[in-house]
Amino acid sequence: MTDPEPGTVYLVGSGPGDPELLTVKARRLLDGADVVLHDRLPGPEILEQLPTDRSEDVGKRAGGERTPQSEINERLVELAREGNSIVRLKGGDSFVFGRGGEEAEYLAAHDVPFEVVPGVTSATAAPAVAGIPVTHRDHASSVSLVTGHEDPMKEESAVDWEGLAAVGGTIVVLMGVSRLPEYTAALIEAGMAAETPVALVERATWPDQQVATGTLETIVEARDEVGIEPPAVTVIGEVAATRSQVLDFLANEPDYNSVETDEGV
Amino acid sequence: MTDPEPGTVYLVGSGPGDPELLTVKARRLLDGADVVLHDRLPGPEILEQLPTDRSEDVGKRAGGERTPQSEINERLVELAREGNSIVRLKGGDSFVFGRGGEEAEYLAAHDVPFEVVPGVTSATAAPAVAGIPVTHRDHASSVSLVTGHEDPMKEESAVDWEGLAAVGGTIVVLMGVSRLPEYTAALIEAGMAAETPVALVERATWPDQQVATGTLETIVEARDEVGIEPPAVTVIGEVAATRSQVLDFLANEPDYNSVETDEGV
Repeated sequence: MTDPEPGTVYLVGSGPGDPELLTVKARRLLDGADVVLHDRLPGPEILEQLPTDRSEDVGKRAGGERTPQSEINERLVELAREGNSIVRLKGGDSFVFGRGGEEAEYLAAHDVPFEVVPGVTSATAAPAVAGIPVTHRDHASSVSLVTGHEDPMKEESAVDWEGLAAVGGTIVVLMGVSRLPEYTAALIEAGMAAETPVALVERATWPDQQVATGTLETIVEARDEVGIEPPAVTVIGEVAATRSQVLDFLANEPDYNSVETDEGV
Repeated sequence: MTDPEPGTVYLVGSGPGDPELLTVKARRLLDGADVVLHDRLPGPEILEQLPTDRSEDVGKRAGGERTPQSEINERLVELAREGNSIVRLKGGDSFVFGRGGEEAEYLAAHDVPFEVVPGVTSATAAPAVAGIPVTHRDHASSVSLVTGHEDPMKEESAVDWEGLAAVGGTIVVLMGVSRLPEYTAALIEAGMAAETPVALVERATWPDQQVATGTLETIVEARDEVGIEPPAVTVIGEVAATRSQVLDFLANEPDYNSVETDEGV
């Protein structure tokens, strides 16, 4: 008896959470996969739609610890060698703070074919659905995406907040709720204006999406008043002020109602 | 007779070009819209699927000039006031170098409701399908997205290449084919190693996708050898070297064939 040809692993980004923001390809692959490996970040609505008999939650082990990446890598290879077609589903995009690069390297090193299926990254989608463009011709010609959730093994912050402040574009921080006080202070210290607009978008496109707005100086207070919890995305820069300009006509808002206009009657 | 309630404008990102990388929501809205306003960047396959009797190409005017943004804004308001449901379709994501922010502001200022429908941005998808993660736990804790296509009205480059070089994360340049010599030189001048890996991905996920790889020092030559033309995305940083590590098992490649493994027979 010969071993089967290895199955293909699809490294699929789920988008920010709304099942309609899955790509057509992600939807097709999820419906057809032999096995889906996921954690909790794709959000409740997408997870509910997964076939329970073909899904494995690799986000946490019993006891609440995070499953080590090495175990997930090994499981992907094991399943592929059994000939399965596998979807590795990540929130947002696998290749934007999703460790998809490490999975790709491991799979290639173990002779397992894989395909990358890009998703809508929360880094740009969370601001967008809150009415905030991360770039703007008038006041942001670049956007930098960073993580606020440091590897606990690293001794100092790997993020160069001073350098980012100097570049002057929009800064988007993923997983940056708990360290918000530290990095807003670091940015002010590095010379960014304390009045720089900031927005926090929690669970973008999930049924319980929440947004808090303020400035580098006031956003920690706003976070606490609104009760923003992880997962959330922080947007720092002049663009964050766009939200208040467009909010009355932003149909993405959960409480948006049809708008009355002067021409209406 | 009363004017109708204004229709909603959907600011929809099409993703990089593969019709299967449209979101489920974009697909639904395109199928149901009264009018679709688009330019050429969504790519040939998506454009072919648009209903010709309900589509307007606002990318170029007769004579080859680009349609001014102000005309597009006015057309959106005009169509909305007639009660139409409108999809404004942009390549990638409307709010990432897509001028969606300006459209949102104009619509809100003219009492037209709008909804943002995020798409898969080419800034992360083009590297991804070429096997390149824009972040990596070992060697890129941030990624900065910039445009290489400057507003010709600006006197000097708005992009702070020196600052970006100092931050040390991955740099992704959109629309940066023609100015590649200038900004690669600027980055070396600013202290980035001449051996820093660089990849150029042209028409990512389109049928005629092309990739060129090299270093800050050699990529201009590689661009010319491969014949890379706009639109393309440039990825600069250690992550760009991932492609060569995983290429033999990357099923995204147009010329990918099933892989033979040691266990195969």
